[in-house]
Amino acid sequence: MSTTAEAAIEADPKLPIIRITREFAATPGQLFRAHTDPALFARWAGPDGSDIHIEDWDARTGGSWRYTGQLGGTQYAFRGCFHEVRPDRIVQTFTYEAEPDGVALETLWFEDLCGGRTQLRSQSLVDSFEGRDAWLASGMETGVNDGYAKLQRMVDDGTV
Amino acid sequence: MSTTAEAAIEADPKLPIIRITREFAATPGQLFRAHTDPALFARWAGPDGSDIHIEDWDARTGGSWRYTGQLGGTQYAFRGCFHEVRPDRIVQTFTYEAEPDGVALETLWFEDLCGGRTQLRSQSLVDSFEGRDAWLASGMETGVNDGYAKLQRMVDDGTV
Repeated sequence: MSTTAEAAIEADPKLPIIRITREFAATPGQLFRAHTDPALFARWAGPDGSDIHIEDWDARTGGSWRYTGQLGGTQYAFRGCFHEVRPDRIVQTFTYEAEPDGVALETLWFEDLCGGRTQLRSQSLVDSFEGRDAWLASGMETGVNDGYAKLQRMVDDGTV
Repeated sequence: MSTTAEAAIEADPKLPIIRITREFAATPGQLFRAHTDPALFARWAGPDGSDIHIEDWDARTGGSWRYTGQLGGTQYAFRGCFHEVRPDRIVQTFTYEAEPDGVALETLWFEDLCGGRTQLRSQSLVDSFEGRDAWLASGMETGVNDGYAKLQRMVDDGTV
């Protein structure tokens, strides 16, 4: 029941939004758990070879989060707050700490396709097209695709 | 040292953003306090005649907030999380609970004009022009202008 599909990553033509869509051989509950349980999240997020440490994690409406990562010799940190955490949708803010004034509003939807399949849709909204396009040009698709492939393998082997 | 200027409320032509600018006869610290102290905030926010109750309030980076209001016979509630609270800038999310799927990312800047004057700038970013324009058409300017006038009077009379 595995899937090897790449995620579709699209820039909206009229809005400063990046949209990502990816189908998983998983239930909505499994994907929700993989996004809210810090020990699970740390195992799949980011590109292959990254090492993630959860520094803060309170995955409930009104909570907040922060994690640091290491990839080769490079260290990075992301943080934000959880505006809403519910089984079909997570809304959170996102800042890359090396650019502390930048903020994205991220929404994730878990859409049940039935038969043990789920479509994960997400959007990242920022306040300029330049900021959006710089993020797209940063090589983010490697992190997205590597991460989602790890997540799918964790479902396949029963970890999630 | 009072000011009677109306706030400038503008829709960005190319981005789904509302921008509000208003100059106050106040220090940045006074405006920051009026936006972070729940007892002060409840006294000025909203249109004249509104009665605001703070339900949750944790005005620090990673905290969250919720308040209910009453105006005539109408009740309403807003909530969100504080992405970042620092002396020159507050970034927070905002949801009107009657439209629970709508979320705005709000940023407020307190810019010191010196001599006891401060420019308050804010922007509200949403994910569609339709949503932005519906918000603009809702009569929000009454709440903004009444609220800021109350805030200025609280500075003038030494409450803030």
